[in-house]
Amino acid sequence: MKDLFSVNQLTKDDVWKIFEIAKIYKEKFNAGEKKFNDLRGYSVLLVFFENSTRTRTSFELAGKILGADTINITASSSSVKKGETLYDTVKTLEALRSDFIVIRHSMSGAAKVVADSVESHVINAGDGTNEHPTQALLDAFTILEKKGKIEGLKIAIVGDILHSRVARSDVKLFKKLGAEVTLCGPITMLPRHFEALGADFVTTNLEEALKDKDVVIFLRIQLERQDKPFFSSLREYSIKYGLSQEKINLLKEDAVIMHPGPVNRGVELQSELVYGSRSLILNQVENGLFIRMAVYKYLLS
Amino acid sequence: MKDLFSVNQLTKDDVWKIFEIAKIYKEKFNAGEKKFNDLRGYSVLLVFFENSTRTRTSFELAGKILGADTINITASSSSVKKGETLYDTVKTLEALRSDFIVIRHSMSGAAKVVADSVESHVINAGDGTNEHPTQALLDAFTILEKKGKIEGLKIAIVGDILHSRVARSDVKLFKKLGAEVTLCGPITMLPRHFEALGADFVTTNLEEALKDKDVVIFLRIQLERQDKPFFSSLREYSIKYGLSQEKINLLKEDAVIMHPGPVNRGVELQSELVYGSRSLILNQVENGLFIRMAVYKYLLS
Amino acid sequence: MKDLFSVNQLTKDDVWKIFEIAKIYKEKFNAGEKKFNDLRGYSVLLVFFENSTRTRTSFELAGKILGADTINITASSSSVKKGETLYDTVKTLEALRSDFIVIRHSMSGAAKVVADSVESHVINAGDGTNEHPTQALLDAFTILEKKGKIEGLKIAIVGDILHSRVARSDVKLFKKLGAEVTLCGPITMLPRHFEALGADFVTTNLEEALKDKDVVIFLRIQLERQDKPFFSSLREYSIKYGLSQEKINLLKEDAVIMHPGPVNRGVELQSELVYGSRSLILNQVENGLFIRMAVYKYLLS
Repeated sequence: MKDLFSVNQLTKDDVWKIFEIAKIYKEKFNAGEKKFNDLRGYSVLLVFFENSTRTRTSFELAGKILGADTINITASSSSVKKGETLYDTVKTLEALRSDFIVIRHSMSGAAKVVADSVESHVINAGDGTNEHPTQALLDAFTILEKKGKIEGLKIAIVGDILHSRVARSDVKLFKKLGAEVTLCGPITMLPRHFEALGADFVTTNLEEALKDKDVVIFLRIQLERQDKPFFSSLREYSIKYGLSQEKINLLKEDAVIMHPGPVNRGVELQSELVYGSRSLILNQVENGLFIRMAVYKYLLS
Repeated sequence: MKDLFSVNQLTKDDVWKIFEIAKIYKEKFNAGEKKFNDLRGYSVLLVFFENSTRTRTSFELAGKILGADTINITASSSSVKKGETLYDTVKTLEALRSDFIVIRHSMSGAAKVVADSVESHVINAGDGTNEHPTQALLDAFTILEKKGKIEGLKIAIVGDILHSRVARSDVKLFKKLGAEVTLCGPITMLPRHFEALGADFVTTNLEEALKDKDVVIFLRIQLERQDKPFFSSLREYSIKYGLSQEKINLLKEDAVIMHPGPVNRGVELQSELVYGSRSLILNQVENGLFIRMAVYKYLLS
Repeated sequence: MKDLFSVNQLTKDDVWKIFEIAKIYKEKFNAGEKKFNDLRGYSVLLVFFENSTRTRTSFELAGKILGADTINITASSSSVKKGETLYDTVKTLEALRSDFIVIRHSMSGAAKVVADSVESHVINAGDGTNEHPTQALLDAFTILEKKGKIEGLKIAIVGDILHSRVARSDVKLFKKLGAEVTLCGPITMLPRHFEALGADFVTTNLEEALKDKDVVIFLRIQLERQDKPFFSSLREYSIKYGLSQEKINLLKEDAVIMHPGPVNRGVELQSELVYGSRSLILNQVENGLFIRMAVYKYLLS
């Protein structure tokens, strides 16, 4: 396994091995071992054509902790401005002897194109509305850590399913690991053929979606991308699809709430719920670090 | 002492200890020891919401010299563009196991808010018009190095006192260390209640301010922030408040000139004075490196 | 030799020594030794006032592989926005104890000005239309690697000779090493006094330029800089000065094709030729890494 561009590539065995590596890194880190040499002498090129704090920082820090040399390449300061093709950009990076290329790009399928073009290990950090596989891995790892299992859990994903690469990767991975998945959102934000995604249920009714769930993942409304709106107003969206204190009671007693961040406070979640007792949002961020360390390590071995 | 967000936090004892650490680093560095392990395994996240060359580079280099992993996060490439709150940004960085968060922000009080929100060590690299404590430390350290003492020195600070976080931190620290401080600037740039700042004298007359001083610090006119002007013209400002060769004679014979940089040549200082024999401007930059190394080290211990 | 701002500084002996160091680094790297300590404890400040992927990444990675601490300073996030002069910017960087300053600037002569101003080692990564000496070194190194010699080779350089810093540095270096150099381009893109550049021949006819050549270097049309056009249309340029499959036959049988990148596909080269069997474009990128490692090392010794 040279690259990670899609959850489709991963067998259950791959997933468990990545989780095992992540778990060991986390234990060592928590025990005070904060610097490793697994990637010493390796270079990680972080090629982000879209803005990001958490994902880029997470990949960069994961690389540095493992001893890699990391280099940031952003669209705004790069040859992309000179009209270079993505293919030529990555062929150039490969010629610079890059060991890893971590790429985020607005084009669905970009990571696969890159992976097929170079000998470097390529990791998809989000490609258009297609996939974000390390997010799915960190989500599943976080659930597993909290619930002790994934198999048989009832998981709901709420929001703009149609445009969400997180949803797409999450559904695939949760199904692979044996969970039951419900998708929920306004009709304009649900894919027409949701079965193709592999989900079990789909509903436009949040109450129905929350009922008896172990885990609910709220997706970010990409306000900055809503050039044509998919709902009449933010206020209406938050009333119908946002989580409030009252609606929490519909969930199982020990249910947990997740969100890939950044949260639009008051839209997807009422503000006081963001870091509330049910929330695993910061656990997701933290585990993202160890999952990315594990993915580097796994692709190398 | 977890954080450094204000000079108010520092006792005289803290200051002397930081200076002692900075002095030792400087001596070792000058003796050829250019790499240390004091921060090995620690991460430093440089979160700059305002542009900066010298301060960011100084903090980044100081971190690297001490062996830390440093990561740049700028507003332009971050989730801030997605509307994330400062609080959520730093909670995320904390979850990524950041050891240090160095923050520059346009909002006065931002560093304190961040420090109160996270367990990471937070260092204020400038917050609005409030404070810039490491600048004050490097200014005092530079004066001490040159004059052998701070106590009893007569120091003038000239320029836009009202909007200057450097002035605010400098006055507090110089007074704490026993100097006599005079503030000077156009009436529109002086705080109405200057005593609140702790200064001894205030004047709109540069000649009066310079007379018999050991040290004069000229503040940068923030041309890029002058949406409504505080003086009629740059030319008038430079004639009334800029330092020329003739005005230097009003100072003590061994007086020194300082400026936090970048200098507007011909405005605050006549061009030939910028690196003249009286100028400590480059000493300030150099000592900034060692002071920041010392602050990292001090907060860690 | 403190700095590398121009090919003029280099004796043949300097060039061979740099090539020798580059060759050794490349051999070691290929043998699996991917991390060195030659620059451990040294800082490399990458000061890029113009966009770049390959050159900046190449210098940054070269520095990191050698163990240096590297820091990026771009115009967009720096004090340059505050109106600071280039001189003051680099005096500040020097005061921060920079060991190397790698600079790209739109002003011809900028690197020399900087080199004369500071004690740090200064490397020119491109200054206006003047020079790009490490590009010339990597070009010559790549030719040498492929052809076994430079002396006596017939080399053509095709494109916008007038505005190309690559052409200027290439001609100087190729002549120094004993090659015969032909320049070719539209009359509006040829310098009026080409002999001053040291070239042997000049022509506006591509067929004439290609005939019997060992090496042809195509220069990038700087579309982003063509505020007033130097040719009637891109299509016309590509027909008259672009390389097509048919025109290749004019070259020697074992001739090679080079380009500093990024290529405008279909303009300078037909798309299928970019990574064709004759192309050394990726070799150039790869060798750039080792040449830059060698230049750091050579300036230090």
